[in-house]
Amino acid sequence: MKKSKYKEQVKALRAELIQLQIALKDADFPVLIVISGDDRSGRHETLNLLHEWMDSRFLQANAYGLPTEEEQQKPFMWRYWKDLPQNGVIGLCLRDWTSYSIIEYLIDQIDEKQFTKRIEYSNAFEATLTARGMLIIKIWLHLPEEELKHRLKIERKYLHKVWQIHQKDQLIYSDFDRAKTVIQKTLKDTDSDSSSWHIIESSDLYQRNLHVGKLIAEKIRARLNRSATDNVQPNEDSKTGRQHETTSQKNHLDTIDLSKHLDKKTYKHELKYWQHKASHLIYQFQEMDKSCVIVFEGWDAAGKGGCIRRLTSSIDAGFYRVIPVAAPTDEESAHHYLWRFWRKIPRAGRMSIFDRSWYGRVLVERVEGFASDNEWQSAYDEINDFERQLHDKGIPVIKFWLHIDKEEQLERFKERETIPYKHHKITEEDYRNREKWTDYEITINDMIDKTSTSYAPWRLIPSNSKHYARIEVLKHVCNVLEKTLKDSSTE
Amino acid sequence: MKKSKYKEQVKALRAELIQLQIALKDADFPVLIVISGDDRSGRHETLNLLHEWMDSRFLQANAYGLPTEEEQQKPFMWRYWKDLPQNGVIGLCLRDWTSYSIIEYLIDQIDEKQFTKRIEYSNAFEATLTARGMLIIKIWLHLPEEELKHRLKIERKYLHKVWQIHQKDQLIYSDFDRAKTVIQKTLKDTDSDSSSWHIIESSDLYQRNLHVGKLIAEKIRARLNRSATDNVQPNEDSKTGRQHETTSQKNHLDTIDLSKHLDKKTYKHELKYWQHKASHLIYQFQEMDKSCVIVFEGWDAAGKGGCIRRLTSSIDAGFYRVIPVAAPTDEESAHHYLWRFWRKIPRAGRMSIFDRSWYGRVLVERVEGFASDNEWQSAYDEINDFERQLHDKGIPVIKFWLHIDKEEQLERFKERETIPYKHHKITEEDYRNREKWTDYEITINDMIDKTSTSYAPWRLIPSNSKHYARIEVLKHVCNVLEKTLKDSSTE
Repeated sequence: MKKSKYKEQVKALRAELIQLQIALKDADFPVLIVISGDDRSGRHETLNLLHEWMDSRFLQANAYGLPTEEEQQKPFMWRYWKDLPQNGVIGLCLRDWTSYSIIEYLIDQIDEKQFTKRIEYSNAFEATLTARGMLIIKIWLHLPEEELKHRLKIERKYLHKVWQIHQKDQLIYSDFDRAKTVIQKTLKDTDSDSSSWHIIESSDLYQRNLHVGKLIAEKIRARLNRSATDNVQPNEDSKTGRQHETTSQKNHLDTIDLSKHLDKKTYKHELKYWQHKASHLIYQFQEMDKSCVIVFEGWDAAGKGGCIRRLTSSIDAGFYRVIPVAAPTDEESAHHYLWRFWRKIPRAGRMSIFDRSWYGRVLVERVEGFASDNEWQSAYDEINDFERQLHDKGIPVIKFWLHIDKEEQLERFKERETIPYKHHKITEEDYRNREKWTDYEITINDMIDKTSTSYAPWRLIPSNSKHYARIEVLKHVCNVLEKTLKDSSTE
Repeated sequence: MKKSKYKEQVKALRAELIQLQIALKDADFPVLIVISGDDRSGRHETLNLLHEWMDSRFLQANAYGLPTEEEQQKPFMWRYWKDLPQNGVIGLCLRDWTSYSIIEYLIDQIDEKQFTKRIEYSNAFEATLTARGMLIIKIWLHLPEEELKHRLKIERKYLHKVWQIHQKDQLIYSDFDRAKTVIQKTLKDTDSDSSSWHIIESSDLYQRNLHVGKLIAEKIRARLNRSATDNVQPNEDSKTGRQHETTSQKNHLDTIDLSKHLDKKTYKHELKYWQHKASHLIYQFQEMDKSCVIVFEGWDAAGKGGCIRRLTSSIDAGFYRVIPVAAPTDEESAHHYLWRFWRKIPRAGRMSIFDRSWYGRVLVERVEGFASDNEWQSAYDEINDFERQLHDKGIPVIKFWLHIDKEEQLERFKERETIPYKHHKITEEDYRNREKWTDYEITINDMIDKTSTSYAPWRLIPSNSKHYARIEVLKHVCNVLEKTLKDSSTE
């Protein structure tokens, strides 16, 4: 292609990309462009090119190198989750989850089994993001074999010393044929309708640049058009969640024996014992740099706060964080709903205690119609996947449902109203929620059914007796920690 | 004190604290409560107590232990900056900047000189936060000498193995008298009108709890009242920034020789040379895990973007981040204006390139009256302090002012309007800003005068010739990096 012709085409393309960026600002979805491939310098050039062609204020580039200490402590996908662009923004990603896993596998830092898991994580990640509206454009810059081999040879000669990460890039081709096979298979395994790979021949600069630019423009334009159509035909199904078939056959809540209780004397005695034990176990846990996630869900006034305080008073304040979950902030709303929880995963030796959690998606958001049917229905898998990644990283997820009956709740509401410093805890909304008791029962049963997994089972706590509930919670935390310690010592 | 009397007082106190928290939600300032002192378990108990007494959803507790890898790479105050509470929220801080420095000094991890610097940082930190409205309440829980010695003895016996951080707590008292002297002196040195220490006798639980609660209630109430008064008498001075005395005697901008230029051929040649050199130096920089901050300021259309791209094309995309600075988000606005920049300090081996920066405070915010006189006037010191902390940590701060004249700017505006993909860069606002050219000249001169420091001098770049400017920027970056590398190799 002649330079003059290229320049002319670029001019038109830039104008279009800018127009699309302006339209994108008001969109209710983000864009994530993955720039990958065997053309190492091409990836870098492409990143710079896009910064030149587009309005860089609404581009957000992230390149991933060797994992930091913190990244190593957290599930593999953590660093990609935390950097996700928000609605209206275009994220650019170098060394994405798939490419980075390929590198690690080819240089034998992870084995076959771990690699397979990575591919599962990657696919689940992309599926959950695209299902929630994100446009993912995955570009693989490909060099013909001849040229790639030639470049690798030059690079090896030219660089006396190379950056660690480049060394890795080099190393993956130490067995060229194996690398080729693995890459081809992986690209196939991570290709889906909603996020497919676009292989772009990278040897001719002009062709490549135009190809990349046009692809991006085309994809964004199509996505914007789809959004426009979506808006014309609002989802009729939303807000009718509870009329849908509930697949839960078993009424889990009815199996909870609410008559369980503890007298004050036994309670005091047990509390001392279990708090001491918890303190000891948590101390060991921290010494081993292990972390843990505890989730408290339950009816309003079921006593979540009280249970949390009995637990935290056994822990040194430096080692836990209680995360009260309320309505999302503006920034949080402009992201996938799991984004804010991914960001709060504890680092090694720390404990995150969630007072309400991501389960809001399948509870209040479902009942109130804040989430569409499609949204809350997909959430079960999304949540299970999230918790599995924590579990796989050795971070136990302990989940409590604190259960009380309707009469007990009313009594507690009344009691709160008479105590000045508890009065603020009761609002009109609490009474409104109460009226939806039956709706909530259905959603809670569904939640327990679909998210009680082998790696993160729900623990249902009879809580009509606060004493009983607090001890049960402490006991269960102790059991899980003890088991985790035992398992890790026999590994 | 009798238990019944205590309970009664607590009831009233809790109700008041909750009321204050509700009032605080709409306040335009945050509260930061430091819980420190020689009573280790008392600190922890107090944290739990406050969570019990108040609405924990609007409390944000942070406890600081041994610094993480990332914390070690950044200035000491970084971890405290990034966790600051936003307006309406109460932050609780365990092992604050002062207490942590005392520990490190007493166990000889930092020397006298470093300790003195820490005290300077601490005082500057508190001064800048309180000057911008934050209420800081510093509590020192104090045990009588007898009792403290007794407790230390028990702890030593009781704990077979102690957490690292507790070991430190213990160690500081290995020379009891020295510890006492250092603590007393430091508390005095870090006591100021706007953030003074409140020494609270900690041996009696009831007394201590009431004392802490009442102190917090009293301080928040007083601060809320002050705010209310402030609102009745709006600051008459704001928006009149430019009528104030400008202390800059020298016209820095006039000293810039705008006739400098480079012909295309020389430019291409030089560009190649300096990009190659920059690439080489940046590579060495990264190999040594050094990081760097580069700031681009300049008139609209002065060519910041072009200079940045010529620089970044020499760097591997994984190692730099361009941070375009626009209007703050809601979350950012609810914090000290430097908060969002502290959060973007690069980690080891990385480079942050700011396209506009914290200098907006003393430029556009001053001219447009977004910052009050008091606010932009104090900003010079606040900014210098920020940059000094980066410099002290071995992170060079390279600052460019790209200068063009009024005619050149107009020409570039006109040119942009004719190019479709540049058209979006020109708005009405650009023309409005142009009308304030003289106001801006004054503010720019003041800025250069007051923030050109030995550790972070301004580099004024004649930019009527884009070619000339780009080469100058590259040259200067190379020089600074080269010097830094040299200095660190002779250390």
